[in-house]
Amino acid sequence: MANSLDRILKSIKPLDSVAREAARRRQNSLTKPHGSLGRLEELSIQIAGIRGEATPKLEHKAIITMAADHGVVAEGVTLYPQEVTRQMVFNFLKGGAAINVLANQIGARVIVVDMGVIGGFEPLPGLLCKMMDFGTKNMAQEPAMTHQQAVDTIEAGIDIFEGEMKKGLDIIGTGDMGLGNTTASSAISAAISGKSVREVTGRGTGIDDKQLAHKVEVIERALSVNKPDPKNPIDVLAKVGGFEIGGLAGVILAGAAHRVPVVIDGFISGAAALIATGLSPQVKDYLIAAHVSSETGHKPLLDFLGLKPLLDLNMRLGEGTGAALGIFLAEASVRILGQMATFAEAGVSEAELP
Amino acid sequence: MANSLDRILKSIKPLDSVAREAARRRQNSLTKPHGSLGRLEELSIQIAGIRGEATPKLEHKAIITMAADHGVVAEGVTLYPQEVTRQMVFNFLKGGAAINVLANQIGARVIVVDMGVIGGFEPLPGLLCKMMDFGTKNMAQEPAMTHQQAVDTIEAGIDIFEGEMKKGLDIIGTGDMGLGNTTASSAISAAISGKSVREVTGRGTGIDDKQLAHKVEVIERALSVNKPDPKNPIDVLAKVGGFEIGGLAGVILAGAAHRVPVVIDGFISGAAALIATGLSPQVKDYLIAAHVSSETGHKPLLDFLGLKPLLDLNMRLGEGTGAALGIFLAEASVRILGQMATFAEAGVSEAELP
Repeated sequence: MANSLDRILKSIKPLDSVAREAARRRQNSLTKPHGSLGRLEELSIQIAGIRGEATPKLEHKAIITMAADHGVVAEGVTLYPQEVTRQMVFNFLKGGAAINVLANQIGARVIVVDMGVIGGFEPLPGLLCKMMDFGTKNMAQEPAMTHQQAVDTIEAGIDIFEGEMKKGLDIIGTGDMGLGNTTASSAISAAISGKSVREVTGRGTGIDDKQLAHKVEVIERALSVNKPDPKNPIDVLAKVGGFEIGGLAGVILAGAAHRVPVVIDGFISGAAALIATGLSPQVKDYLIAAHVSSETGHKPLLDFLGLKPLLDLNMRLGEGTGAALGIFLAEASVRILGQMATFAEAGVSEAELP
Repeated sequence: MANSLDRILKSIKPLDSVAREAARRRQNSLTKPHGSLGRLEELSIQIAGIRGEATPKLEHKAIITMAADHGVVAEGVTLYPQEVTRQMVFNFLKGGAAINVLANQIGARVIVVDMGVIGGFEPLPGLLCKMMDFGTKNMAQEPAMTHQQAVDTIEAGIDIFEGEMKKGLDIIGTGDMGLGNTTASSAISAAISGKSVREVTGRGTGIDDKQLAHKVEVIERALSVNKPDPKNPIDVLAKVGGFEIGGLAGVILAGAAHRVPVVIDGFISGAAALIATGLSPQVKDYLIAAHVSSETGHKPLLDFLGLKPLLDLNMRLGEGTGAALGIFLAEASVRILGQMATFAEAGVSEAELP
């Protein structure tokens, strides 16, 4: 195991129970019936525990959107042509994609990373390059990447995260772009959770029943050809993963190590969370599941992780779009915690408990 | 039926189907798989139909929080002392309540209205006065208000809304404050929907099982004493309603008449929506249900209205807090619609449909 991954894994610690308890007490002193803000209260307490502060602020917000291509697209598992991955990266950089619009609304920056897009890019303003290769290999025939590449993608994610920390980073959202990446994510889900491929495989960008049956068959083939070791997340990532998924796993691990709440987006980010929590189960406490997407495999994946999504809006776009909405709710929760008046401050009478 | 209510009811028209269709076409031209933003897409199309514009903007946002007291509190149906209604109005005006924090986050103004709080207020900066009386009568013994007062509360709501329109108003959220108002809202729900009192009655600010049984009994008594006519929403409002509930019904009706999307908050706003849609069923198309609260009666109420909530965060505070989160999502939806690049603009390839 290489340097930065090892260092990060060693520095992931439990949540700060003192800060969490202080936040809980403060929630109960605010001018509202106890518990009446439901999940916003719980979220604020979790974030206090992550940040190690009784009343954390989420000023610096960012969404890291990682893009890569997938060799398995050669099997005909997607609806859009493969060049869309590259075209969408340009769209991100020009600000025309959904994630740009939503990130702008919540005041978050979007960090676009080329983890291995076919065709590659000249140096472009706003594009970070961690290119591993022009897409992964076709996992239906051979491992998607080497073991070393798998480690490198995770370390690339750590490096991206730590670079962004220097600019200020209080909360991070994960996002993805990559034709074929629901196929890889389903393979990861099946490999790690032990669920059947059918149960965790959905329509991605919108394939029909026949294409879905084919996609399931391709994933089953990939698992049978590669035999990923469910107990070894790096092996799973190497054999049936993707460069952006590994990169996001690195982002998630680094977030936990640096006590930054990680708002995970949809199915692809969830697959990255499977890899990350496989490497360090403690990471789970640092995760906020923004939403459950309409991609079939996402709900079982969140159940496996033991995470309860904040939103259920029938979304399935990726890019970090769900994470952006989740960051808004996270910010709402800490603003409530930090800015509301207490009963004593406002001169409001408390409940008459029997 | 008095003047402004009559005028408003006559001016409520169907949604603009041309604008809605234009919005739908535009959603399908944006750089994302068709339908991949799920409910955000549907929401943007609804708002286009409400505003009568293909790409509406939601620049001016407001939450109208109406406060009043309830005579039925004398029956011992609440956990907090009655003076909390008045104390919380001061908290709203000082900016210390949850609704202030959330409205500030989404860039909405909070309009605080005294619809009939016990004790009343000297003129205060930021407080609008539509005071009907120092609270309603005890509906367990007699009608909560007169028929004329019921009409007046609705017209007061219309007046408040139209006053705010002059300052610019593209979307409105409803909010409430009033000890005892879940009791009135349950009574309205049971009267109009025909569901049993038990089915639509919950714990309000947090009463226990014994208190809940008592609350159900009080509401059953109120319905049996007053016999509200389910087909006559004004009669229901007069006999078992509340001043803030009538005021919010007026806000909702005025929103529909002036083609402003109305984001309804929780159970009390839902009861106001029952009154408003009872007076004009067309109003329903102008409503956005922000969330389903953890108050027992809210889900059956939304089902009866045929509205699907955007959020389910186990909240039950009122004030407009759920509406504030809903307004954020509404704004996200129209920003997506208006600001994303199309496939043609971004040079992104479209799906290869078979």
